[in-house]
Amino acid sequence: MDLLSIENPAFLKNMTIDELNELSMDIRQFLIENLSKTGGHIGPNLGVVELTIALHRCFNSPQDKILWDVGHQSYVHKILTGRAGQFGTLRQYKGLCGFPKTAESEHDVWETGHSSTSLSAAMGMAIARDLKREKTHIIPVIGDGALTGGMALEALNHIGHEQKNMIVILNDNEMSIAPNVGALHSVLGRLRTAGKYNWVKDELEGFLKKIPAVGGKMAQTAERLKDSLKYLFVSGMFFEDLGFTYLGPIDGHDYEDLFENLQYAKKTEGPVLLHVLTKKGKGYGPAELDTKGTWHGTGPYKIETGDLIKPVGQPPAWSALVSETVRKLARTDDRIVAITPAMPVGSKLLGFAEEFPDRMFDVGIAEQHATTVAAGLATQGMKPFLAIYSTFLQRAYDQVVHDICRPNLNVFIGIDRAGLVGADGETHQGVFDIAFLRHVPNMVLMMPKDENEGQHMVHTAVHYDDGPIAMRFPRGNGLGVAMDEELKPIPIGTWEVLREGTDAAILTFGTTIPLAMKAAETAEKQGLSVKVVNARFIKPLDETMLMHIFKADMPILTIEEAILEGGFGSAVLEFANNRGFFGHVIDRMGIPDCFIEHGSVGSLLEEIDLTEAAAVRKLSAMTPKKQKRA
Amino acid sequence: MDLLSIENPAFLKNMTIDELNELSMDIRQFLIENLSKTGGHIGPNLGVVELTIALHRCFNSPQDKILWDVGHQSYVHKILTGRAGQFGTLRQYKGLCGFPKTAESEHDVWETGHSSTSLSAAMGMAIARDLKREKTHIIPVIGDGALTGGMALEALNHIGHEQKNMIVILNDNEMSIAPNVGALHSVLGRLRTAGKYNWVKDELEGFLKKIPAVGGKMAQTAERLKDSLKYLFVSGMFFEDLGFTYLGPIDGHDYEDLFENLQYAKKTEGPVLLHVLTKKGKGYGPAELDTKGTWHGTGPYKIETGDLIKPVGQPPAWSALVSETVRKLARTDDRIVAITPAMPVGSKLLGFAEEFPDRMFDVGIAEQHATTVAAGLATQGMKPFLAIYSTFLQRAYDQVVHDICRPNLNVFIGIDRAGLVGADGETHQGVFDIAFLRHVPNMVLMMPKDENEGQHMVHTAVHYDDGPIAMRFPRGNGLGVAMDEELKPIPIGTWEVLREGTDAAILTFGTTIPLAMKAAETAEKQGLSVKVVNARFIKPLDETMLMHIFKADMPILTIEEAILEGGFGSAVLEFANNRGFFGHVIDRMGIPDCFIEHGSVGSLLEEIDLTEAAAVRKLSAMTPKKQKRA
Repeated sequence: MDLLSIENPAFLKNMTIDELNELSMDIRQFLIENLSKTGGHIGPNLGVVELTIALHRCFNSPQDKILWDVGHQSYVHKILTGRAGQFGTLRQYKGLCGFPKTAESEHDVWETGHSSTSLSAAMGMAIARDLKREKTHIIPVIGDGALTGGMALEALNHIGHEQKNMIVILNDNEMSIAPNVGALHSVLGRLRTAGKYNWVKDELEGFLKKIPAVGGKMAQTAERLKDSLKYLFVSGMFFEDLGFTYLGPIDGHDYEDLFENLQYAKKTEGPVLLHVLTKKGKGYGPAELDTKGTWHGTGPYKIETGDLIKPVGQPPAWSALVSETVRKLARTDDRIVAITPAMPVGSKLLGFAEEFPDRMFDVGIAEQHATTVAAGLATQGMKPFLAIYSTFLQRAYDQVVHDICRPNLNVFIGIDRAGLVGADGETHQGVFDIAFLRHVPNMVLMMPKDENEGQHMVHTAVHYDDGPIAMRFPRGNGLGVAMDEELKPIPIGTWEVLREGTDAAILTFGTTIPLAMKAAETAEKQGLSVKVVNARFIKPLDETMLMHIFKADMPILTIEEAILEGGFGSAVLEFANNRGFFGHVIDRMGIPDCFIEHGSVGSLLEEIDLTEAAAVRKLSAMTPKKQKRA
Repeated sequence: MDLLSIENPAFLKNMTIDELNELSMDIRQFLIENLSKTGGHIGPNLGVVELTIALHRCFNSPQDKILWDVGHQSYVHKILTGRAGQFGTLRQYKGLCGFPKTAESEHDVWETGHSSTSLSAAMGMAIARDLKREKTHIIPVIGDGALTGGMALEALNHIGHEQKNMIVILNDNEMSIAPNVGALHSVLGRLRTAGKYNWVKDELEGFLKKIPAVGGKMAQTAERLKDSLKYLFVSGMFFEDLGFTYLGPIDGHDYEDLFENLQYAKKTEGPVLLHVLTKKGKGYGPAELDTKGTWHGTGPYKIETGDLIKPVGQPPAWSALVSETVRKLARTDDRIVAITPAMPVGSKLLGFAEEFPDRMFDVGIAEQHATTVAAGLATQGMKPFLAIYSTFLQRAYDQVVHDICRPNLNVFIGIDRAGLVGADGETHQGVFDIAFLRHVPNMVLMMPKDENEGQHMVHTAVHYDDGPIAMRFPRGNGLGVAMDEELKPIPIGTWEVLREGTDAAILTFGTTIPLAMKAAETAEKQGLSVKVVNARFIKPLDETMLMHIFKADMPILTIEEAILEGGFGSAVLEFANNRGFFGHVIDRMGIPDCFIEHGSVGSLLEEIDLTEAAAVRKLSAMTPKKQKRA
């Protein structure tokens, strides 16, 4: 059918199973074609075509609330709720968001980007529904990977206790982002092989209910009998232990199985966990065969071969540079242990894992645990390398404060995807890490200007013995600079002058250095001599160099691809204030006090005026006399 | 015996059970007497006397590592490791810390204050031990309450998966800080009543092992038989599902039971969970009879009666003021729902819970879940009040950013224990919340000057409809001011002039206002006319008032009981910078870039020079000309 004509999911109610199967094929075809051009999370969405259709058929969205815990898994949902026409703009500036977005549709009832939030949100919605005496269904859809996140487990515990009506769909594709980790995974595995025990249980329970309850004693026996039945039919009643009615496992690509179970779940009192087995990448060969998670989210690809269309001859990815340098150092330093919360692919740690299988730990989607495992390792004299994305480190703020910085332990945090990340949008921008780390005592925070300095910083971090040290680096690739053979330490808290100048100084680091250099050149043509400093240590500041700049009475422009409030520029203001440099002209460029949506990093920087042109304007404005002279 | 003579726990090895029982009595006596004078966490420590002695008898600390997840439960451990003599200074300035502290003793191998960290740290230690090929035991002791914390569940999942040798002691006292919450609690309840199934299982397994394995088939049957055995003997094999060998439940006050099981655990390969039942307050009547959690941690008390020695006629506690005002508002606004992560007593929410049992949710030690439940409620038009301590809100930083502020939901966060908390020390000081909230877009952050303004702020927060709003308030009691009958809104982002002046302006809020007022009076005697502003909105700032002050060219002194980096003073610097007020004299007082230890708030403020005298000095220094004039 013509997917572009869909306005809402009501049309699904009257379709036959044959028609639904045809629709599934159309949607798969649509996704494969569209995502081959835009890129996107192809694997996860191909896996939930039937499940999404079944949910919209059996429930009435938006009155019934479907929450996509794995937000990038909502593409089919977007198609069924009238957004097929916008797929050409997926994850692009001002285009369709890659995650649920309440502003896009009334059917997007919960916005997700970070995983494991849906059960807690669903619990809030269920409490509200019951207080308002409404009768709607609340259906969070959560992946087996997201279930290892602490807050999802906190929620399971609370939901099971409160016994609110809720239908939790456990979408079990046996692989979250990376192949799944943890004991929960084996529990799911055992459930998967245990077969359909529910029907048997129901029949027996029906029989037991018919036994007349004489004086309570018989009823009690029947109750005990019912309990023990469970253990006869399935080996691992994890979810029932927690207070859920467990249904499944069922085939997530079989409509009859889905309908039957969803209808049964609708009638069940209290929380239900419906365990649905799906196959990531279903219906597209290259994605189906993926065992490493490379088809989780991709750029554009050739449909016929599944070859990714990648620009050739690019400099190494930042993640690879960092992880491979750690790997190199690990060859001569057996204290180094790498930890990742479910991102071995994204953090390019597969090589490390292959070479040092005993020294690399993928702990699953569990940022808090990952951080404190690193702390525990450090107490024993090891040198943990915690590889984590900036936006996910937010989950472990307390662990950084309480477990690493407070006892001042030697943990090296590699903060990946720092700064704007682009297509993943506002839930994933790595723009807060400076503001949430800079104020934590004992923390050292740095960012390299290029991949050569990056490798030296990794060396510096691994050899740093005075407490925690974090290195932020951006998404994407390095600059393609020449790499030194020998690694060398960079003295903590030292900056580097990249360009001399006398009229003004730009202090910046990382991705905004090229912008600063160009702005300085342009300003030079306007008669301004601009110094550019690689302020590679965000904490501690290079106080010696700062004192020189302040004493030379040069106006200062700070530039950072991070939130301005409490950021690097504020650190410079604080320094000036502490030292009594009143009256010194300082201006700050960075990310304003709002959340930044998705789009190419270039478009986003333009939108917030974090550009060379803006820097030149500011340089001119802060040096009025010099300009007149020129 | 003379507890003061204990240097290390080696003496325990040769004691008879009778002698140990006598020692237990001595320790209880010691604790009851000492804590009656200093206050402290009496209930939890009386509960673990035998358990702590048994651990130090069966293991060799510090080679074997005992981690106290519930850090305030380490008093007996402190006595056994040579610190009895310091109990007179417990939780006092420069005295014995109320939590494990590596600087105090080599037997304190992991510092805890926030709960649920010990399993992750133990995992890090276990990885290190195995890589170093050492043979030591690692024994985290975790309470049933702490087990509901997400990171503990993340850790259980990972430990079960990795099968590292580790002995997890689950200290199950059926009540964490408040009576326990959650489905996990029922699991534990079922285990508690299931009796000693392990011995039976062992015997049967021994028998099964003797069956010859012919061609694998028989072995397979035996394996299946072993599996099903579990379900015959215990109803809820939650921990075994996760990969642990479950032992228990055992009587945590019976040495023979403890020794037998600890020895068995030592010999077991892979992770063991030893389920120990203890009674909080054991051996002291008033604490044993406690059902509400009031004997969790107390101030000084009369030993004979258990009456707390409280100063009489004190103004209402801040927590009570806030919670009771919310309760009053809830009578006419049925959208109000209160949420607490395990702190109904501390947050004084018992009255609310009694009046509105359907509208108050204690979610257990689960700050992340609590925060996102609030977000879920807000999506449905409810008015959630999230009552949480400043230091524990650190656990939910990502949920505040990602689930509340990003979608701009109407959640009212009551940030309790903001600022220095005193005796609980560095893990509990509420000094980071301004720095970690101020940079989050959409957040409104305020702090009242007294309890009357506090009640109006609660009213303001409940009626605010433009997004998240947080009110921080200190530990302890109000000032005893007169309370208005009618609640009224305070316009968002407006400050209040408390004292007019022309030579300088102090901008401050909350607990530091009295200090500022006194400093202004003292300065007046020195000829300075000092304005004092109640800067009750930390975000957004009162820009109109700030503009007046800047335009009047008055030097500004900011004072805050919070970390300086990224704090309120920095917000004023940023404002001045944004508006181009270069050359304006600003000075900032607050908490320096370090962790602040335990002690009375007064001693701590002296130590960091956050005092009236310092303010007067700074006022003088920033107004040299005015002074000469005077």
